Amino acid sequence: MSILTRPILEIDLNNLLANYQLLEKIAPHATPAAVVKDDAYGLGAAVVAPLLYEKAQCRNFFVAHAVEGQRIADKLPQAKIYVLQGIGEDCLDIFQQVPQLIPVISSPEMFEFWKSNRLPNRKPVIHIETGLNRLGFREHDLKALSDADLSEFSMVMSHLACGDEKDHFMNAHQLETFEQLKNIYFPDLPASLSASDGVFLGEKFHWNMVRLGAAMYGINTAPYRLNQMQNVVRIKAPVLQIEPLPKGEFVGYSATYRASSDRKIAIVSIGYGDGLPRSLSNVGKVYFKVRGKLHECRVIGRMSMDNLICDVTEAEGLEVGDFAYIADDFYTLDDMARDAGTISYEIMSRVGKNTRYIRKYIGQ
Amino acid sequence: MSILTRPILEIDLNNLLANYQLLEKIAPHATPAAVVKDDAYGLGAAVVAPLLYEKAQCRNFFVAHAVEGQRIADKLPQAKIYVLQGIGEDCLDIFQQVPQLIPVISSPEMFEFWKSNRLPNRKPVIHIETGLNRLGFREHDLKALSDADLSEFSMVMSHLACGDEKDHFMNAHQLETFEQLKNIYFPDLPASLSASDGVFLGEKFHWNMVRLGAAMYGINTAPYRLNQMQNVVRIKAPVLQIEPLPKGEFVGYSATYRASSDRKIAIVSIGYGDGLPRSLSNVGKVYFKVRGKLHECRVIGRMSMDNLICDVTEAEGLEVGDFAYIADDFYTLDDMARDAGTISYEIMSRVGKNTRYIRKYIGQ
Repeated sequence: MSILTRPILEIDLNNLLANYQLLEKIAPHATPAAVVKDDAYGLGAAVVAPLLYEKAQCRNFFVAHAVEGQRIADKLPQAKIYVLQGIGEDCLDIFQQVPQLIPVISSPEMFEFWKSNRLPNRKPVIHIETGLNRLGFREHDLKALSDADLSEFSMVMSHLACGDEKDHFMNAHQLETFEQLKNIYFPDLPASLSASDGVFLGEKFHWNMVRLGAAMYGINTAPYRLNQMQNVVRIKAPVLQIEPLPKGEFVGYSATYRASSDRKIAIVSIGYGDGLPRSLSNVGKVYFKVRGKLHECRVIGRMSMDNLICDVTEAEGLEVGDFAYIADDFYTLDDMARDAGTISYEIMSRVGKNTRYIRKYIGQ
Repeated sequence: MSILTRPILEIDLNNLLANYQLLEKIAPHATPAAVVKDDAYGLGAAVVAPLLYEKAQCRNFFVAHAVEGQRIADKLPQAKIYVLQGIGEDCLDIFQQVPQLIPVISSPEMFEFWKSNRLPNRKPVIHIETGLNRLGFREHDLKALSDADLSEFSMVMSHLACGDEKDHFMNAHQLETFEQLKNIYFPDLPASLSASDGVFLGEKFHWNMVRLGAAMYGINTAPYRLNQMQNVVRIKAPVLQIEPLPKGEFVGYSATYRASSDRKIAIVSIGYGDGLPRSLSNVGKVYFKVRGKLHECRVIGRMSMDNLICDVTEAEGLEVGDFAYIADDFYTLDDMARDAGTISYEIMSRVGKNTRYIRKYIGQ
């Protein structure tokens, strides 16, 4: 028996790299770019970006904020780092200091700012809106641009709303709109429409650059079929205590679980403070391996900040110090997200930012 | 008009300190301890703990993991830092290096580990179970301890399940159980039963030490009455773009919002990657101040990782670069948690861990 207290977060860089390379093959005529915004979805941009730079010769990266690009730029000397949230007064200094950063301009107002604060040797990307109704120039905004304005840009991009649903009407609609606007306003520019979900929609959606994010991190962005991606994130946490739970007793905050028969419970050293969704309370699953057998056990009661409680009545032979498998190849963050009523992107982003884990990069 | 891109997280240390001092007054006969686990609920233990140490002479702190205590110990030379998840093989070295750390022993197995790995000049705390059915010695575990075992400890603690519901039967039940077990097994030890929710349950619940966490951070741990605490967390994010949304158009991923009339939308530079709950999609509220008037606007469509979209049709005069108020004194994280179907503890813990914010400590 071991006495352990800390959860473990394992990030499989071999699988991440394999995912990137598979996506490259699916879109062979497009330049691949790696999306490492939000600290590489929490998995560590300072590790992920240099890995792709060195092992996969990736030279194009996307971040959300300039400050995110600044933190990794030294390790990517020959790369272009596109900044999706663009440029403004609160990050102009960062753009000035870091020559790899290329702003993505998404509004007429931001374009005016750019024209008053141009950076030498850099041509921004223009983001155009094609149906997501999020960031980007609408057609009426494009109409107001002069020929000189239109020549300021180095690439035109847009973003799909429903790329994860193969037959959604929005995909064809956005593709058509993108093609029309590009032909009218930017006939000579390279173009980028798809993130990793769009890669699976076929060559028409690939254009000149594909932006590889979620699928690279193992998320199934084509959930209408089995995931082609390898799993990247594994989480386990030790059992701190195993105790009987007599019939009639309550479990956890606000006493939301009551034992209707004598049960056995395990207290596991991980909670929502470690990035797990608290909505797994009373519905989540954790797994135990005892003498070669895998047991699926239910989370009972409310999840706490530092602990969760699960029903291990059926997991005979389980001992203090054994690991609860929270996410693994057989129960991925996509599976957890289904149980929690959200998407794995959200969970990954939270898990990865926690500094209490023993963090292990596999294949570094 | 300003062009801005980054969200701003403001942590009001004046209010945090005032909250701590008010809680001290409500429990005048108990020693106050500050709970700074999970990086001070994400607000920065390296700032919060030294503040309380210096400005409020706090000398007792609680963390979840030894590694969390290690990160702040240098700044708290004369303090005791209690480690709730206890001691084990994966953190023994940290306990050996950091003399301020005191393990909280919650199981017979962990106690055996302690006896094989005692640390000089340190007496652990024993955690006993009184109704939460989480960590702690059950009565059958206590019965198995020898007199010598019982003399190993310096304090006895337990934790309330329903301290945020004043008249919940569990409070009286846990108090009675705690009193009985303490009298039998630890008649001479100081005792701690209550976190900040228990502070509001009256003097019987205070014992010798109260553990001040959530309420200190401004969370209402006594939601059966108006919050006595000052708000600590404020979040705002700039408007990147304002555009018309014609009738019939869809908004956001998976096109979950459709405009039933011509609307005006704003794209705000903050999303679930910044720690906001994605469950605010189509239900959350954000606020704008235009010429002295406060506008409450609905989040529409799915929240993205880096952006949210809201309906600003009624917010006349709103401009790009204006701030959306995401959390503030008039709409706290408690209010947001109600809208998101969770508790503010979870949101605070996620927001505070993000490094994309411009982070400002007020009153430092």
